[in-house]
Amino acid sequence: MAKARHHVVVVGAGFAGLELVKELKGADVEVTLIDRRNHHLFQPLLYQVATTSLATSEIAWPIRHLLRRRKDVRTLLASAAGVDRAGKRVLLDDGGGIPYDTLVVATGARHAYFGHDEWEPYAPGLKTLEDATTIRRRLLLAFEKAETEPDPERRRALLTFVIIGGGPTGVELAGTIAELARDTLAGEFRSIDPREARVVLVEAGERILPAFKPELSAYAKGALEKLGATVELGRPVTGCGAEGVTFGGVVLPAATIIWAAGVAASPAAEWLGAEADRAGRVKVAPDLTLPGNPDIFVVGDTAHVENADGSLVPGVAPAAKQQGRHVAAAIKARLAGEGEARPFRYRHGGDLATIGKRAAVTDLGWIRLTGRPAWWLWGFAHIYFLIGLRYRLAVALSWLWIYATGQRSARLITQGDADGGNDGRA
Amino acid sequence: MAKARHHVVVVGAGFAGLELVKELKGADVEVTLIDRRNHHLFQPLLYQVATTSLATSEIAWPIRHLLRRRKDVRTLLASAAGVDRAGKRVLLDDGGGIPYDTLVVATGARHAYFGHDEWEPYAPGLKTLEDATTIRRRLLLAFEKAETEPDPERRRALLTFVIIGGGPTGVELAGTIAELARDTLAGEFRSIDPREARVVLVEAGERILPAFKPELSAYAKGALEKLGATVELGRPVTGCGAEGVTFGGVVLPAATIIWAAGVAASPAAEWLGAEADRAGRVKVAPDLTLPGNPDIFVVGDTAHVENADGSLVPGVAPAAKQQGRHVAAAIKARLAGEGEARPFRYRHGGDLATIGKRAAVTDLGWIRLTGRPAWWLWGFAHIYFLIGLRYRLAVALSWLWIYATGQRSARLITQGDADGGNDGRA
Repeated sequence: MAKARHHVVVVGAGFAGLELVKELKGADVEVTLIDRRNHHLFQPLLYQVATTSLATSEIAWPIRHLLRRRKDVRTLLASAAGVDRAGKRVLLDDGGGIPYDTLVVATGARHAYFGHDEWEPYAPGLKTLEDATTIRRRLLLAFEKAETEPDPERRRALLTFVIIGGGPTGVELAGTIAELARDTLAGEFRSIDPREARVVLVEAGERILPAFKPELSAYAKGALEKLGATVELGRPVTGCGAEGVTFGGVVLPAATIIWAAGVAASPAAEWLGAEADRAGRVKVAPDLTLPGNPDIFVVGDTAHVENADGSLVPGVAPAAKQQGRHVAAAIKARLAGEGEARPFRYRHGGDLATIGKRAAVTDLGWIRLTGRPAWWLWGFAHIYFLIGLRYRLAVALSWLWIYATGQRSARLITQGDADGGNDGRA
Repeated sequence: MAKARHHVVVVGAGFAGLELVKELKGADVEVTLIDRRNHHLFQPLLYQVATTSLATSEIAWPIRHLLRRRKDVRTLLASAAGVDRAGKRVLLDDGGGIPYDTLVVATGARHAYFGHDEWEPYAPGLKTLEDATTIRRRLLLAFEKAETEPDPERRRALLTFVIIGGGPTGVELAGTIAELARDTLAGEFRSIDPREARVVLVEAGERILPAFKPELSAYAKGALEKLGATVELGRPVTGCGAEGVTFGGVVLPAATIIWAAGVAASPAAEWLGAEADRAGRVKVAPDLTLPGNPDIFVVGDTAHVENADGSLVPGVAPAAKQQGRHVAAAIKARLAGEGEARPFRYRHGGDLATIGKRAAVTDLGWIRLTGRPAWWLWGFAHIYFLIGLRYRLAVALSWLWIYATGQRSARLITQGDADGGNDGRA
């Protein structure tokens, strides 16, 4: 019998986990990839599912299929519930356990409400496909309910859409919802004019897109306003409920609220008994291992990783992929007996955000773009990063159609709202 | 003030209702189209969503959008709950009411379990998008659970898929599930071989596709068997449960059961206080009016309509569309004072059914086809009947991709199973 090969267990098939598994190709290891979903989600485009531009299946791809040719990889649909560090096993929620030689935790993040979990039913966040179809349903239902609402004040609230958080997701949501109302839905109703919808982006800080240069933030604000959206700066939200959103001490009546303001890491820090930052991220050593546990790596949105200047590595797809690649190289080097792992160093490639279908901001460091050139760059970059020709063709078709006609193809209201929310109650 | 125009209220935006509204174009009427869903569903391809071939949004199109240019039509997202015939109002479930001059009831059908509603959690039917995503989830989960199931008997049950009912939907489901297992999923698992999955089509009658000529039924049975499916004839199902399907006095252990055996009309007969057949369909006069109520028409799967020879008009899309056109013509003739409505006469265009991606049976009366020519005819006919270039392009892309690569693009497990079922319990 052959000697058992080194077994790498990866929990989470997001950008970090999947990249790691790809980079382990050819290494003398067996890999088990555990995820509680059967699909890898291309999260940067999730807001497009929420706003009816893309179908769910265009940005969610079966993990098993992506890795079908890798006979060294076993894909497991299962929920991790803990880690037995002494016994070197990942514990599953069905009572089972998976032994590992090296463990990589890449379980991502959820949205967080800064101690106000009671806001969640009224202001859903956007992390999973179900989050996206929930937001899509609420958006479309608000227009449908407004069409039959006789009371002008309630109609106004139904046609008010508030997005909380001025990062790229918030900006992209606000721009697309404004376009949805003014372009896609215009002319389809008889009692209301969807173009009268108010789209309000609320950001507690002094500018939107704080990761960008101030002039790009200013451009993005102007581009949003040109689309008919309103940007509210400098006043943090102090309440979300059936009546609407409270900020600056005033309630803005709104039936639809979307949370794009904060994330918290998955409970991996608890599983590992590890030190975490305020957002629940595991504080890792410079080589991305759990301090004192060279056989455990923590990567992606689950990890608190600092740059040399003390700033935090951002929770974006390129950072997650770089960490995945770093850990794959570290595992290979270790098996080859090449000594200590090198510290991870994040290389910032640039920042991109779109505002509707004709404007975007791009900062690649050496070049900054706005407007249409930035939009096309954004579009091509995202098509490039999709996996597989089939999905590239489908997304390109969807985008070209929206670009040419303004019509979005995934305008579905599906599944009942089991989570309460304030559909039509505001 | 202008005299109020004749108000036609249509309940249900399926094939019959939508065709009726289209045909009323230019007539001197106001139309209100009520549906409890925001989308028209292209039901003949729903089984392709259930079997991961098409995305939900490829076959479900916003009704409001389809009718956006018809300023005489008001689309209403609402649930009808009854009809006040004396007051000439449709009653909505939110307590409201919509007055009508002419009412058309086109509320379709649901699947029916012939007095065994307790089978439904174990053997879901296929009528709505949610039905399709439920079946899709169960199909894919069965393979995932089999991958980790140590007990060979339970693994066998997890890899057994039973479809009850040998009509076109049952045949198409069986063929596609067999292909999914043998072609799409083959090679993606490590512990199981998906090609060992058993796909069993159970039909109580003596042959599948009873609406077709016997030689086409025989061909279809052979084509299914060539794909690796089993066809069980002549023994009605007497039980569905966590343990599997019982027919011929024997239990076939199966974790996934799909019901394609029977339908029952929507509760419209109750609303109307009308005489119904055993399947709940309203018995209509030859001109499709409710007997004694010339201002009420009942069409599509909700109506029991007899041909001249006493046979029943089938519950298929072409029959529904013909009825919609007939009623539109009747309303226009009546408003023009052209006397009594003529009786509806169903013209049978033909029967089509596919078996996987390379075979089909087609009977157009004057010509019968099998194999690839029938498959291509089936494909082009369905692309033709889709509404809008956007959806035609998307579906054509999806099909060509499956045809060329065997890969299906909508392999998503989404939403938890709130309805019990026997996921992994069998």
